Amino acid sequence: MIADRPAVYDLYAAYGALIDVGDWDAWLDLFAVACRYQIVPRENAELSLPAGLIFCDSRAMLEDRIMALREANKYNIHWDRHVIGLPRVIGDADAEISVEAPFAVYQSDQEGSSRLFATGLYRDRIISERGGLRFHDKVVLLDTFAVPSLLATPL
Amino acid sequence: MIADRPAVYDLYAAYGALIDVGDWDAWLDLFAVACRYQIVPRENAELSLPAGLIFCDSRAMLEDRIMALREANKYNIHWDRHVIGLPRVIGDADAEISVEAPFAVYQSDQEGSSRLFATGLYRDRIISERGGLRFHDKVVLLDTFAVPSLLATPL
Amino acid sequence: MIADRPAVYDLYAAYGALIDVGDWDAWLDLFAVACRYQIVPRENAELSLPAGLIFCDSRAMLEDRIMALREANKYNIHWDRHVIGLPRVIGDADAEISVEAPFAVYQSDQEGSSRLFATGLYRDRIISERGGLRFHDKVVLLDTFAVPSLLATPL
Repeated sequence: MIADRPAVYDLYAAYGALIDVGDWDAWLDLFAVACRYQIVPRENAELSLPAGLIFCDSRAMLEDRIMALREANKYNIHWDRHVIGLPRVIGDADAEISVEAPFAVYQSDQEGSSRLFATGLYRDRIISERGGLRFHDKVVLLDTFAVPSLLATPL
Repeated sequence: MIADRPAVYDLYAAYGALIDVGDWDAWLDLFAVACRYQIVPRENAELSLPAGLIFCDSRAMLEDRIMALREANKYNIHWDRHVIGLPRVIGDADAEISVEAPFAVYQSDQEGSSRLFATGLYRDRIISERGGLRFHDKVVLLDTFAVPSLLATPL
Repeated sequence: MIADRPAVYDLYAAYGALIDVGDWDAWLDLFAVACRYQIVPRENAELSLPAGLIFCDSRAMLEDRIMALREANKYNIHWDRHVIGLPRVIGDADAEISVEAPFAVYQSDQEGSSRLFATGLYRDRIISERGGLRFHDKVVLLDTFAVPSLLATPL
């Protein structure tokens, strides 16, 4: 599959924007029907420890998780802002492409104060499905793992 | 109008860079002759409250505002650094395109300390004019509105 | 040389990613055989003061410096995360292109806390060599110069 650069960039732009605006249906639509999504502290990934903060290996599981986070979010009012760096295509096979992109997520509270919430790296495998690029396997390698209890939205 | 992706990216790259370097003439040149520029706390935007921190509905008004900010800036010496995320083209009509882009702005003081100043989202309508893309209507949706008194440069 | 936008973006994406993952051989490979790399506080650059925090005017010197930093890094365990904004091609001559890109670098410690480490601007001259784009002259204009003693990796 030839990595169409604008399509890859658009996928990441949409990924961050849809979390920030809370449009979960459109966000879930960025994932392939068969998908995996996990948030893993970078430290665990380096030691090949499987334990992640979030692990979903089906779309239904991801949907369930989003619903739970939305509920939790009612008691922790804040707004996210994703700033995602330039994606890097690191592999381009017949059926899928491997892409990495660094990110910083900021949170703002109801008083209008903003702070850095987390930084990390997306390490993704992307396929073409339903007429567009979709995340088949998304790993969120988290530099900041001291705040898992505040994970009220996906990253 | 077909959204030419490199031209859109260049427009945002120039927008942030020209503020950071203080080249206000070149910055103003990124706007259409008939333009609107406003900075609105995200909270107000969600409630459809019109009150913004800055509202300019003509190029002359925007120029005036920049002159005032430059004057204020003499007493609040700092340097801005814009890091703007991937722009997202969300609408592409005959005569204009709608684009959103997340941003983080950092400020550094004379002692060389840097800190996060503000995060937010640009929600823009862009037209083609004078041989290039220009902002026809730029809304700066501000996540961080606890510091309006420090707004000594545009965002 | 016609600035091939995807190639320019890829160069910056690789530049940040390779520092963050500590792949120094691949990182050095992004530089031309004849290269210059320096980190200069923005203040010094504005006053045309030559003094930089790091100055390497050959590839061998840059390699030496990286080795020294790696050694220092053993006593200051942390992880970098570069988020580089959209590159801006500001000059495109026959043999080289001039590009600027803003950046923010975050550091995370072993406890999983992240913080802003530095912001600044890359001001680069890029040439084509060995079948790809390479940094011929890279200037890291640093907004944050209050922390030079912590410079345990390149920026």
